[in-house]
Amino acid sequence: MSTALYETEPLATLAKLPRSTVRTAVAGVTGYAGGELARLLLNHPRLRETQPIFLGRMGSEADGTTVYDLHPHIAHNEISAPAVVPFTWETLRDSGTEILFLATPHEQSREWVPFALEAGMRVIDLSGAWRLHDAANAAVYKLHDANPVLAAKLQEEAVYGNPELHRDEIREARLVANPGCYSTSIILALAPFIRAGIVDVEHGIVCDAKSGVSGAGKAPTAKTHFMYAADNLSAYAVFGHRHTGEMLEQLGLSSDQIQFTPHLLPIPRGILSTIYLRLNEKKSAAEVEAVLRNFYAGSPMVRVHRSGDLPQIQHVARTNYCDIGFELAPDGKRLVVVSCLDNLLKGASGQAVQNLNVMCGWKESEGLL
Amino acid sequence: MSTALYETEPLATLAKLPRSTVRTAVAGVTGYAGGELARLLLNHPRLRETQPIFLGRMGSEADGTTVYDLHPHIAHNEISAPAVVPFTWETLRDSGTEILFLATPHEQSREWVPFALEAGMRVIDLSGAWRLHDAANAAVYKLHDANPVLAAKLQEEAVYGNPELHRDEIREARLVANPGCYSTSIILALAPFIRAGIVDVEHGIVCDAKSGVSGAGKAPTAKTHFMYAADNLSAYAVFGHRHTGEMLEQLGLSSDQIQFTPHLLPIPRGILSTIYLRLNEKKSAAEVEAVLRNFYAGSPMVRVHRSGDLPQIQHVARTNYCDIGFELAPDGKRLVVVSCLDNLLKGASGQAVQNLNVMCGWKESEGLL
Amino acid sequence: MSTALYETEPLATLAKLPRSTVRTAVAGVTGYAGGELARLLLNHPRLRETQPIFLGRMGSEADGTTVYDLHPHIAHNEISAPAVVPFTWETLRDSGTEILFLATPHEQSREWVPFALEAGMRVIDLSGAWRLHDAANAAVYKLHDANPVLAAKLQEEAVYGNPELHRDEIREARLVANPGCYSTSIILALAPFIRAGIVDVEHGIVCDAKSGVSGAGKAPTAKTHFMYAADNLSAYAVFGHRHTGEMLEQLGLSSDQIQFTPHLLPIPRGILSTIYLRLNEKKSAAEVEAVLRNFYAGSPMVRVHRSGDLPQIQHVARTNYCDIGFELAPDGKRLVVVSCLDNLLKGASGQAVQNLNVMCGWKESEGLL
Amino acid sequence: MSTALYETEPLATLAKLPRSTVRTAVAGVTGYAGGELARLLLNHPRLRETQPIFLGRMGSEADGTTVYDLHPHIAHNEISAPAVVPFTWETLRDSGTEILFLATPHEQSREWVPFALEAGMRVIDLSGAWRLHDAANAAVYKLHDANPVLAAKLQEEAVYGNPELHRDEIREARLVANPGCYSTSIILALAPFIRAGIVDVEHGIVCDAKSGVSGAGKAPTAKTHFMYAADNLSAYAVFGHRHTGEMLEQLGLSSDQIQFTPHLLPIPRGILSTIYLRLNEKKSAAEVEAVLRNFYAGSPMVRVHRSGDLPQIQHVARTNYCDIGFELAPDGKRLVVVSCLDNLLKGASGQAVQNLNVMCGWKESEGLL
Repeated sequence: MSTALYETEPLATLAKLPRSTVRTAVAGVTGYAGGELARLLLNHPRLRETQPIFLGRMGSEADGTTVYDLHPHIAHNEISAPAVVPFTWETLRDSGTEILFLATPHEQSREWVPFALEAGMRVIDLSGAWRLHDAANAAVYKLHDANPVLAAKLQEEAVYGNPELHRDEIREARLVANPGCYSTSIILALAPFIRAGIVDVEHGIVCDAKSGVSGAGKAPTAKTHFMYAADNLSAYAVFGHRHTGEMLEQLGLSSDQIQFTPHLLPIPRGILSTIYLRLNEKKSAAEVEAVLRNFYAGSPMVRVHRSGDLPQIQHVARTNYCDIGFELAPDGKRLVVVSCLDNLLKGASGQAVQNLNVMCGWKESEGLL
Repeated sequence: MSTALYETEPLATLAKLPRSTVRTAVAGVTGYAGGELARLLLNHPRLRETQPIFLGRMGSEADGTTVYDLHPHIAHNEISAPAVVPFTWETLRDSGTEILFLATPHEQSREWVPFALEAGMRVIDLSGAWRLHDAANAAVYKLHDANPVLAAKLQEEAVYGNPELHRDEIREARLVANPGCYSTSIILALAPFIRAGIVDVEHGIVCDAKSGVSGAGKAPTAKTHFMYAADNLSAYAVFGHRHTGEMLEQLGLSSDQIQFTPHLLPIPRGILSTIYLRLNEKKSAAEVEAVLRNFYAGSPMVRVHRSGDLPQIQHVARTNYCDIGFELAPDGKRLVVVSCLDNLLKGASGQAVQNLNVMCGWKESEGLL
Repeated sequence: MSTALYETEPLATLAKLPRSTVRTAVAGVTGYAGGELARLLLNHPRLRETQPIFLGRMGSEADGTTVYDLHPHIAHNEISAPAVVPFTWETLRDSGTEILFLATPHEQSREWVPFALEAGMRVIDLSGAWRLHDAANAAVYKLHDANPVLAAKLQEEAVYGNPELHRDEIREARLVANPGCYSTSIILALAPFIRAGIVDVEHGIVCDAKSGVSGAGKAPTAKTHFMYAADNLSAYAVFGHRHTGEMLEQLGLSSDQIQFTPHLLPIPRGILSTIYLRLNEKKSAAEVEAVLRNFYAGSPMVRVHRSGDLPQIQHVARTNYCDIGFELAPDGKRLVVVSCLDNLLKGASGQAVQNLNVMCGWKESEGLL
Repeated sequence: MSTALYETEPLATLAKLPRSTVRTAVAGVTGYAGGELARLLLNHPRLRETQPIFLGRMGSEADGTTVYDLHPHIAHNEISAPAVVPFTWETLRDSGTEILFLATPHEQSREWVPFALEAGMRVIDLSGAWRLHDAANAAVYKLHDANPVLAAKLQEEAVYGNPELHRDEIREARLVANPGCYSTSIILALAPFIRAGIVDVEHGIVCDAKSGVSGAGKAPTAKTHFMYAADNLSAYAVFGHRHTGEMLEQLGLSSDQIQFTPHLLPIPRGILSTIYLRLNEKKSAAEVEAVLRNFYAGSPMVRVHRSGDLPQIQHVARTNYCDIGFELAPDGKRLVVVSCLDNLLKGASGQAVQNLNVMCGWKESEGLL
C-alpha cells in the first residue's frame, strides 16, 4: 500500500440513505464480541441477501474454520456455516465491503482504520483505539501511529458511537468509535442529569460498577479461571480503569469529579452500575424521572424505570437494552441511579449494530429485538 | 412466669473467668446461622465435655429430628447426632445453661431475653432486637415490649457484640447484641479512620455492599429462588436497610453523613463492601495502612491488607476473618476501602462464638480457625 | 356450560391451511414456560397482526398486571405491554381464539380441554395431562375426569406433540399433548436407533439426565432455593419420575428395558442426557451417525453432531434445538448417546410453537431461530 | 546422585508406631491439591511442632513467596506464613523429612520417588504415576523410567492409597499411590457389592460421574474459563478417561464390564457418581444397605445413607467424607448407587492426610473433621 495513502484526503461519499442493504465485513470474529456480532449480523433482516464476510486473525484459525466452529451456540441449521476467511487487505478490498466492523485489539484498529477509510469503507470500531479525543486520556492505550498527523485528524473526525448522545453525527460518520461497556452503562445513566445541569458535580460522583466475566475477554487467564471467578467478587483497577477517559469526555467532567470502581461478578454477562450523586437543589422523584424520560424519549434502546423500581441484570442480559432506574433520598438531593446492560450487546456488539442501523438510515432497533 | 420478674434487678454474677468450659444452648437451630453455630459449637475445643443443647422452634420440627437432619453437611461420623429439643422455658431452665445463643427472629429475642437474664443466663442474641440504642433507629424493628421500662433498661445494658470495638464490655456483659452482617463489614472498615478523626464526614461516605444469598435467609421466597438470584445482580432497600442504624450508632454519624446500598450477589455466602470517603487532609498510603494496622493490632480476626492489595470474597468465605484493604487516589484524599467477610461467620455465628470466647476469657479465635 | 357438551361429537373443522395468521391465546402465563411462550408468540412473524391473548390464573394477578410485569426480561419498548386478562370461559370464547395454549397444571388442562375443543378451538397443552395413552402410565397424574368416557375418547385422539416423530398427525390434530422436557431429550436421542431395530433392548438402556433449575418450576420451595441448588448436584425420583411413561410409550419399551435418573443441575436452564445402550450387532461410528442423519433429515430443529463431538448445554440454551451426539466403544457395540436441549424451549414452549407452526402449515422453525 | 542408588535395596525401617509427630514435606504446593494439603497439614494436631516444609516447583515462584501468597484463603493470622522453598534434592535431604507428599505431575513423581525412598523417606504420591500395576493400564501415562527394573519393583511395592480397602498395607507402606478422585468415588461405591459377590458383572456396570472444575486443575485453559464452564454441562473422555484403569484393577473387572463417563459440572468442587448395576439375584433394600454398612463398619470417613436417601454434593463439599446411598428398583435387581465426595479432599489431599494418619498409627480421621 503506497505511502501516498496518508497524504490524500478521504474521498468517500456516503451512499444515499436509506439503503435497502449494505455489504459488511467483520474483522476479529474469534472473541466474544465477534461472536455476538456474527450472530446479530447473520440474523439481521437487512443483511439477508448480502451475507457479511468474516475475517479471522491472520494465521490464527485453521483452514476451513467456520463461524459456527468458533461459536457453536449460534449455529443455524438453515444458514450454512459462514467461512472464516484469513484476514488480508486484498481479501477485504475485493469484497466490496461498505461498512467494516473491527472487533480487533486497539493496536490493530489504530493501524487499520486509515487504510479502510482510504479504501472508501465506513468503519465501526469496537476497540478503545478511537474513542478518546484528549491525548492525556488516550495515553492509557499507548498508541503508536505510523502517521501521527493523519491519526490526529481521523481522531478528530471519529464519532463516539453512542446513538443516544450522537445520533446525528453517527448518521454521517465515516469512523464510529463504539463505546466501552462500563462507559456506556455510566454515561447513559448520568448524561441526562448532567446535561440538565442539576448535578452538584463539584461534590463528586461515585460510580460502583459490576461486570460479568465475558467483559474480561476470551483469553484463559488466572482471573477468568472458573475457580477464581465463581463464588467470588473482587474490585480491580481502582482509580485506574481505562474506560474512565470516556466518561470524562462524554460527560464533560474532570477526573476529580467522578470516580469509578469496577468489580468482577461471578456471572457470564451483564453490567450493573450503582451511581451516587448529589443534586444541586432539591427535586421530587417525579422531576427526576421526567429528566430521564425526556432525555430518552426518542431512544428505542433505553428503558426508563419508575422511581424505586430498580433495574437488574437478568432483565437486560441477552438484550440490547440499557435499563435505568433510580432512588431519591428523603432529602431530595442524594440520588442513586442504577443502570444495567449486557456488556456484549449494548456494551459492545449490539450497540455496534445499532450504529450500523443509524448509519444506514434504518430503524434504530432493527435486528436487535 | 411471675410479673415480678420485670421488677427485680438482674442478679446474675458472672462465673469466675477464665472457665475451662461452659454450658451453652442454642435457640433457633433451623436457619443458616443456627446451622453454622451448631457446627462451630460442636467442634469447639472448650465445649467437648459440655455438648450444647439445641432448641428448635416450638412445634416446628418433628419428634426425633436431629441437628444433622437439618444440616446434613455438618454431620460427623464421630459425634452422634444431637437431638433438636422443642423449645420450652422449662427445658431451658432445667438444662443448666449458662450462656444462651438466640438465633431467633427479633420479636422472639426481644420477648425471651428478659426471662433468660432473670434466670441467670448470659445471652448472645444474633437478631437485630437489641442492637440499637436510639429509639428512632430501633423503630424499623417495630418492637412491642411487654414491659417497656425493663426493656429500655436492658437495651441500655446491652453491649454491641463487636469484639474489635467493645472487647472489654463484652467480657463482662450479660446481654450481647451480635451485630448485623452488613454492619460488621462496614463498621470494621470505617471505625479506624473515623476514630482517628481523619475522615471528612461532612462530605458524606458511600457504602456500596454486595452480599451472597444466605444473607436473605432460609425461607424460600421469590428472591431466594435460584432462577431469580443466579446470573443476576440487584440493588435493594436503597436508603432504607435496617442495618443502617447500627452504622450510625457505632460510627457516631448522622444519616446524611453515610449512605448504604446493599446488593444481592449470585453466590452462597460472603459480603464485599466498597466504601468511598474523603480524608480531611492529604495522606500517604503508608499512613492510611498504619491507621488500620494500629487499630487492629490486638484483633486476631481482622486481616489488614497492604495498599492496593484488595481483599476478595473467596479469601474470607468459610472463615471468621474480616479482610480490609484500600486504594488511595493520587490526590491523597479520596480513599476507597474494601472489606470482605463471610456473612454467616464473622457476620453472624462466627462473631457470636468470638463473643463467647471473650465472655469466657478464652483465646478470642478459639474454635474459629 | 351444558352437560350436552360431553355428548356431542367434536365438530371443529380445521381452518384451511396454510393460514397467513391465526388467533391464539395462552392460559397460564405466570410460570417460566408461560413467559417463554409469551416471548415467542409476541415475536412470531405470523402473529404480528393478531396479538395473542394472555390469560392469568383466576384471581392470581392484580388488575392491570401485564405480561411485562410478570416477565420483565421480555419487555419491548416497541410492543406495548399486553394485559393479563383474568381467565374466564366467557373471555376465552368471545376472543375468537382458534388455537389455545395451556401452560396450566395438569388438573386444569384435563378439565379445560373438553370445553375448549367443544368450543371449536385446537389446543396445545403443555402439561402432562394428555400425553399418556396407557392408563397405568397415566396413573401418576391422578386424573379425575368429570366425564371419563369423553376423556378416554379425547385421550385416544390426542397427538403426542413431538414433530420429529408425529409431524403428520400434528398437522391435523385438534389436541396436541406437548411432551415433557426430559422425555423430549431422551426420546429424540433413542428413537432413531430403536426404530432402526439396532438396539439390544433386552439388555436395558440407562438414561442419566441432568436438568437446570427452571425445570422445577417457579414456586419457591426448599429445592429451588439458591442455597440448595447452587454448588450442588443431586439425583431424585430414581425409578419414579413421571416422564418415564412418555419414554415407554413413544419408544415402545417396557419398564424393565429403560431406566431413567434425573438430576438437578446448578444452572438456570438446559438438559443434558447421557444414554447408555448396546447395539445388537457391531457397527461403525459412520453407520451410527448415518442412522441419526437419516432420521433427522427433514427436521430443522435437531442438530446431529459428528462422532465424538459431544453436544453441551451452552450450545442449546436459549435455542429450540435438540443437539445429539455420540461415542461408540471400540467394541462397536456399546454406544453412549448424549442429547442436549433447553428445557423451556425444545423441552416446553419452543416445541409448543413448533407444533403451532406445523398445525398452521407454516415453516416448522418460524419464529424459533 | 550415584547410579548405585538404583541397585541397592530399599533399607528404610519404619519408625516405631505410633509416633507423636513426624517430619513432613510437600513438593508441589502451587496447585489446588497442594493448597488443600498445606491447609490440612498446617492445622493438623500432630504436626504443630514439626511444621511441614513446602517445596515449590524449581524456578516457578519468586523468592520470598509464601504458601499464603499462593493460597490467600488459607492464611492464618496466628501461624506465620510458611515459605515456599525452591525444590532441590539437597534441601529435601537436609530437612530431615520422614514422609514426603508429592503433589507433582506424574512424570515428576515417577522420577523422584526412587530417590526419596532411597533417602529413607516414605512417600504419599498424589499423581497417577504409581497407581496402576498392569502395564496396559499404566500406558495412558506414557511413563519413561530411567531404571525400568527398579521402577517395576517399586510399582509392585506401591500400595493403592485407599484406606477403606488397603488399611493394613498402607500402615507399613513405603510408597502410597493416592487414588484418583473419580476412582475413589466409584471404587468406594462398588467395592462392597462386588466383594460380596452379588453383582452381575457380566451384564456390565455404568458409571456416570460429574465433577466440579477444580478437578481440571489450576492451569487456565479454554475449558476452565468461566465462560466455558458456567451455566454448562459437558461429557468428555468417553471410553477413554485414565482413571478407568484404577477401577479395573481395584474392582477386579475387565474393561467390558464397566464403563465410565465423566462430566464437567459448573461448580468449584465435588463429584457425584451415579452408578447402574444389576444384582445377580433379587435383594431387599435392607440387604443392600447391610452390605454397605458391614463393609464400612470400621471406616470413619464413609457415611452410608439409608435406602432412598441419596447423597448430594453440598453435604460432602469441604469435608473428607465419601457419602454413599442407593435406590433399588421394585424388581429387587436393578440397583442405582450414588456416591459423593470432595474431589480435592477425599478425592486427593484429604485422603492423602488420611493415609498419613494410617501410616503413623494415628486416628484415621485426625485433622480431617
